[in-house]
This record gives sequence, structure tokens and C-alpha cells, in this order.
Amino acid sequence: MENEPKSVIGRRGSYAKGVARRQEILDRAIEVFAERGADGTSLRRIAEAIGVSHATLLHYFDSREQLLVAVYEHAESLRQAPEDLEQSSVDVMVAAATENVGVPGMVQLYSTLVATAIEEPAGESKEFFTRRFERVRTDMAQRLRDEQAAGTVRDDIDAETLATMLIALSDGVQTQWLLDPSIDLRDTLSRATALIAAR
Amino acid sequence: MENEPKSVIGRRGSYAKGVARRQEILDRAIEVFAERGADGTSLRRIAEAIGVSHATLLHYFDSREQLLVAVYEHAESLRQAPEDLEQSSVDVMVAAATENVGVPGMVQLYSTLVATAIEEPAGESKEFFTRRFERVRTDMAQRLRDEQAAGTVRDDIDAETLATMLIALSDGVQTQWLLDPSIDLRDTLSRATALIAAR
Repeated sequence: MENEPKSVIGRRGSYAKGVARRQEILDRAIEVFAERGADGTSLRRIAEAIGVSHATLLHYFDSREQLLVAVYEHAESLRQAPEDLEQSSVDVMVAAATENVGVPGMVQLYSTLVATAIEEPAGESKEFFTRRFERVRTDMAQRLRDEQAAGTVRDDIDAETLATMLIALSDGVQTQWLLDPSIDLRDTLSRATALIAAR
Repeated sequence: MENEPKSVIGRRGSYAKGVARRQEILDRAIEVFAERGADGTSLRRIAEAIGVSHATLLHYFDSREQLLVAVYEHAESLRQAPEDLEQSSVDVMVAAATENVGVPGMVQLYSTLVATAIEEPAGESKEFFTRRFERVRTDMAQRLRDEQAAGTVRDDIDAETLATMLIALSDGVQTQWLLDPSIDLRDTLSRATALIAAR
């Protein structure tokens, strides 16, 4: 298992088996990152920490960045909460942020990968986070449009712009809280309800 | 300067000469980073790009992280605009953000260093950015307090919390804009004026 060769899928495994093995690696990687974060960790060190060979890891992931993006994506898919249609846009934002900061390694991974996305226009992170921000903005804007229609959210700013602002606020306050935990993350983010309330 | 090894001062240069040389290196480093950003660049490669020896660079900076923080700090000190007391808190935020994104390498350096600060609690970045956020929040809160007293900014949220929110908004929208330049950075940030206006 530790020295699984590149030919394994063709020779003694099925595609499904390869997918399962990849998931298993990601599950273990999530535990490692949740504890340690990712900065400065080579693919070789990550392989050691997960308990697979460097070659095995390279079989499933072309690069360290590709692995890190896959870890983040997998972790996020695992904790996708069932959507509560009763929640306000700000409630959704606050819930996601407080859940995030409960897993320090994953918040670190997020900030590292977003920085990589900004730094490396041709990388995996850039594509992943550009799409992710688009998706999160679209979902948030839809929720805000519904709230504007219901008269609870101000409509002097369009829903897309408000969505961009709320997501920015959430990311930015999480960053400041990580550097200064005396900031009340939940209270600060909750104040957005007053900011976007209909007049 | 605190970190300048004692040997050079006594042995082959004056303290003032060392300071001047360090500034010169930082000036050249800023040009390099403004063009290329910093990700994945070793201290050796940075030395090459600046045109000094690796040993010279190590003489002035203990680590790559220390150099990067010094570059960011130096770049920021160079473009400190004279304070305009007439500017509103949101004007100040919008001006700083639009100036930032005009130098892509520096925005990349900012996001990389903030990610490093979050990832490495014992590093130079953590100390620098924790203090920097404190200072920026304090300045912004003072401005907001004056505006609350003048009746132009809402006072149902305290000035410190509003400052945290505005700074978060600015950082977060810059990040989204870097990944999706179709976002109107200036317009989005300017909407904060309406959000924080007195009712």
C-alpha cells in the first residue's frame, strides 16, 4: 500500500478503486492539515504525515498545489450543511465563518491557497477560487434578492454588490480575528444585519 | 536595524552605511517584487534579481520572510500619502485600496504575507501584520468616532467594530477583484458610505 506503483489502476485496480483510494488519501490529508496547516510543507513531508509514499501521492496529484486544492475542496464538501431556507443572508455568512474558524488548519489552508491564487495566475488555486467566489457570490446574491423583494434588506445597493461586500467582510474579519482573537468574530459579523437592513 | 549583526558595524562599515545599504537593497527589492511578486522565490533567487550576492542579503536579513516583511514595510512607508483631514473614513479606505491594486506585486506580497502570518505564529509576518492591523483599526476608528460625533456616521455600532468591518471589507473586495477584475473595486467599496451613514 505504501509503495503503490503508478501502474496500479491499469494492472490490478479499477477506476472506481482509484477514486476510492484518492478519497481515502484526502480524508487522511484533511486530518493532517486540520492539525498542522500547510505552509512550507513539501509534498514529500505531506506524504509522510499521511502515511503513504511520495510516489503514491504523485500518482493521484500532479503537484503540491493540486493536492492542497483537492484537500480544501474535499473538506468543504464534507461539511456542507443542509441548506436552511429560513436563514437570512447574514445568518448564513456568520454560520459559515464560525464553522470555518473552528478548524484552524482549514482557515490557514484557505488563506494560503487564496494567496497562491492571487500570486500564480496559471495555477490550480486560481481556477478553483475564482469559481468558488463566483458560486458563493451567486448564491448569496440570490438570497439577498429574495430578502430585498421581501422588504427586509435595503435595495439601494444591488444584490450582487451586497453579496460581494458580505463575503469580503466575512473573509476580512476572519483574517483579523486569526491575528487578534480579542475581536468578537460572531458579534462583528452579525452587525452586518443592521448595515444591510431596509430603511 | 535591530537585527544588524554586530560584526559588520565594528569591522567593515559604519552603522549609518549599513542602514543606507539596507535601504538600497529594499529599494531594489521593491522594484523586483512590484514586477514579479514573491511566491516560490528563494532568498537566492531574490538576491540574483536584486543584483547582490546571497551572502549580502543574508547579512541584512535573517530569512526570506524577514526580507519580505521589510520590503512590504518599506514600500508602504514610501507611498504614505499626506493625511487629508477632509477625507471621510470610506474615502480613505477607497483611496488606499485603489492605490494598492495599482501595484500588483505589492498586493500579492500583502496577501502572501498575511497568509504566512496566519500560518506561522512565531514568524516576522505575524508580528508585523498583527501590529499593522491594530494601527490601521485605531486610526480608522478615530476617524469614525469623529464622524459619529459630527452626525454623519451611524452610532448604533461602535467605532472600533465599524473600523474592523471597513478594513475587512476593503481587504476582502481587493481579493475578489484580483481574482475577478470584472468587479468594480472603487464602486463596490464606495457603497460602504451608504451602509455606515447615519440614519
